[in-house]
Amino acid sequence: MRYTPPSHLWEGARGLGLRVATEGNISMTKQIIERAADAPHQTILARTRTTELAAHVGERVRMQGWLHARRRLGALTFLILRDGWGTAQIVAQSEAELAPLTEAQAGVESVITVEGIAVASEQAPGGVELHEARIEVITPIQEAPPVTLSKREVKASLTTLLDHAVVANRHPTRRALLRLGAGVMAGFRATLMARGFTEIQTPKIVASATEGGANVFPVDYFDRTAYLAQSPQFYKQIMVGVYERVFEVGPVFRAEPHDTTRHLNEYVSLDAEQGFITDHFDVMATLRETIAGIIETLREGYAPELALLDVKLPSVPAEIPHIHIADAQELIFQRYGADVRGKPDLSPQDERWLGEWALAEHGSDFLYVTGYPTHHRAFYTYPDPVRPEFTNSFDLLFRGLELVSGGQRLHRYEDYLAALERRGLPLEPFAWYFDAFKYGMPPHGGFAIGLERLLTQLTGAPTIKLATLFPRDINRLAP
Amino acid sequence: MRYTPPSHLWEGARGLGLRVATEGNISMTKQIIERAADAPHQTILARTRTTELAAHVGERVRMQGWLHARRRLGALTFLILRDGWGTAQIVAQSEAELAPLTEAQAGVESVITVEGIAVASEQAPGGVELHEARIEVITPIQEAPPVTLSKREVKASLTTLLDHAVVANRHPTRRALLRLGAGVMAGFRATLMARGFTEIQTPKIVASATEGGANVFPVDYFDRTAYLAQSPQFYKQIMVGVYERVFEVGPVFRAEPHDTTRHLNEYVSLDAEQGFITDHFDVMATLRETIAGIIETLREGYAPELALLDVKLPSVPAEIPHIHIADAQELIFQRYGADVRGKPDLSPQDERWLGEWALAEHGSDFLYVTGYPTHHRAFYTYPDPVRPEFTNSFDLLFRGLELVSGGQRLHRYEDYLAALERRGLPLEPFAWYFDAFKYGMPPHGGFAIGLERLLTQLTGAPTIKLATLFPRDINRLAP
Repeated sequence: MRYTPPSHLWEGARGLGLRVATEGNISMTKQIIERAADAPHQTILARTRTTELAAHVGERVRMQGWLHARRRLGALTFLILRDGWGTAQIVAQSEAELAPLTEAQAGVESVITVEGIAVASEQAPGGVELHEARIEVITPIQEAPPVTLSKREVKASLTTLLDHAVVANRHPTRRALLRLGAGVMAGFRATLMARGFTEIQTPKIVASATEGGANVFPVDYFDRTAYLAQSPQFYKQIMVGVYERVFEVGPVFRAEPHDTTRHLNEYVSLDAEQGFITDHFDVMATLRETIAGIIETLREGYAPELALLDVKLPSVPAEIPHIHIADAQELIFQRYGADVRGKPDLSPQDERWLGEWALAEHGSDFLYVTGYPTHHRAFYTYPDPVRPEFTNSFDLLFRGLELVSGGQRLHRYEDYLAALERRGLPLEPFAWYFDAFKYGMPPHGGFAIGLERLLTQLTGAPTIKLATLFPRDINRLAP
Repeated sequence: MRYTPPSHLWEGARGLGLRVATEGNISMTKQIIERAADAPHQTILARTRTTELAAHVGERVRMQGWLHARRRLGALTFLILRDGWGTAQIVAQSEAELAPLTEAQAGVESVITVEGIAVASEQAPGGVELHEARIEVITPIQEAPPVTLSKREVKASLTTLLDHAVVANRHPTRRALLRLGAGVMAGFRATLMARGFTEIQTPKIVASATEGGANVFPVDYFDRTAYLAQSPQFYKQIMVGVYERVFEVGPVFRAEPHDTTRHLNEYVSLDAEQGFITDHFDVMATLRETIAGIIETLREGYAPELALLDVKLPSVPAEIPHIHIADAQELIFQRYGADVRGKPDLSPQDERWLGEWALAEHGSDFLYVTGYPTHHRAFYTYPDPVRPEFTNSFDLLFRGLELVSGGQRLHRYEDYLAALERRGLPLEPFAWYFDAFKYGMPPHGGFAIGLERLLTQLTGAPTIKLATLFPRDINRLAP
């Protein structure tokens, strides 16, 4: 017996919110025909996004979204509809137009459909507004949101914003800032893919603490204890042995018991690593291209978000100025009178001074500081061949704040053994990692950009916790 | 006192492996000038990638990579150089050319630089080979790799491949398969971004088990127990309230105590969610576009990998055929004689039969099965409005295997309360999630594609463990 099931049941108005059953022979079809019979056989307009409204002046359009704001001015009521991309103004001239909202008790944030005529209006935001509105309530709110979303500024404490992030993230400034994160990721990937980098995804559950130290989260992994990866460092180095050039965008986890404006316990790391370099200057050249690519991606694709947040994007010099840490410390001593010479790292004040100097001297928002002392960088850092007390490492400062760290790594097995011995570190927990260097690894290096830190510094957000959707800190696991 | 530090120290041959110090006045500069004095002042050729060699016939080129293979044939020695992108053949006619390898005891997998003349040759792979080779050993191996990388087929047990993944992943077939993963991610993102989806990154450390059930990994989070996210389900739904359309590429964690060819305890999930749908058929349309976009990205950008692995990409029909699970079970009964009618799910055999039928009847490698029973899907699944014992859900079968799950979700707060009550589930652990539905959520739905499962099915890999760089299973935490 040959059985022919229903196929292509829905034809015609797909995507317009209406479907017509055209054939079929069993229960499912019956159900569909019943539904089709319920629905009025009318033409349903394709949906217009708020950002497309200006292209439809004079036409009847159908929009959907959230009732963002409602304001009465004399005989007129102004509604703002917010959808996933922007907002549009609706002007209601009669109570009848508003009746569906009243009947459903649909306050702001209710989900609605509005049909109306797009009318050019100089007063309207974007130069166009909707008249003769026919409103339909899709989902009325259950209660008023705990954060007011319709004001230009968010008027709520940080705690309120974070506690109610599920709805506070709808605020136009919050969602603009967070959407810039998508642009940063897209720019990062596009720049590196265009340069022959391969994207990888490496394990986040690992057998031992990657970078050493105590700031790891233990995981109960069946009958063993494992850890959350502090970085993809070891794996991205190993993958240089496979693809030469790799990048990864993924979460990293740091069990630092802080609750500050600069720390997150889980954040997104933009990692890159490349082989066949001469030294860290090749990595710095790649990073310069990457930062420029990110800025360009934001400039081209995220103009509304940048405008809303009043972000002035930096220009990236064709060559970012660089200074060795010893020279930087000498400069600080001579220019600012603070004797920080010989210290193992720069203080935040040192970085601010250097940022000020880079802007004054080179007209640059960016500055590379190179050559951090060996005992202050991770064991895998490549020493300066001439002055081995320093390393082939760098930090990128942006407007006087450290934004990115990177450097050249050891690539010879015997150098790893010597580095471990010098520091009194055991081989065993990472024998699999060191193994890779037995089988031929090229000179290589890379960098890691903290996504949220970059967003914080670009936008001037008061805390890094506002640069991520749902932050994790020592006191916060939800939402 | 005005201090002028060194700037633009390096000019000229940047990127060519040689730099010349041009100015400067302190220790760093001195060091650089010493290094520059060490280096011979010769022109260093720009590096040519193996895949670019054919464009340089007749020219002197400089290549870098790994000594992939070495074979003697009469008076000639054939070397294969492998770099991050492909391989190239070098023909040595004298022992003198090979002396640097001999002196450094540089066996296969050593890292080398080769300069020579690109010569057209019909016998050579790719139609071009290198003559008059000048070899320089950059990093000799410490010991021979535990897996032979130079044979067409990997001749090693699965355990050996996984134990030594740090070097086994260099095998051309391994790296081709794994690189397809980069193509899948790129295709997924490009398709959705073109349709107005915003990329998000959601927390992987969560306060409670997302989907319920016992298969979660506990994390020691300061003084509390947290869990690793089994999926971004709740967060991506919430973010529909912000952007309407969102996607995420990220790790998910499942503490399933299995060691099979189909399970990974950590895998990469390609998640999408969209608002303002009519029902699950809108989500299925998006998924169809996404799968087609992924296939097209692979076809356009990954031809060498596909050829090497002998992968025949499926064509995605303009409309993927679909069948309700009740109809599918009726079909299986009538066509194959197995009475599976009324079962809550399809067995692997059922899926194979349906795959066979879809190919025979519709000429399609893909088939949607819709309407899975309510008690078999997660509590947030939207019921079929006409037959509430079924849901607005779907699975996408690819060649008779489930590849993707998805569906419409509940969007009204009161529906969530009722669903929890029906199933006897508490509100409390996810109060923050349910909260979002108090403030207006549109009808929405989405899907999740398992990256490694897709790669396994596309390439016919014998186990999903070979479709990820460094797999995690109940017995494996390293490399």
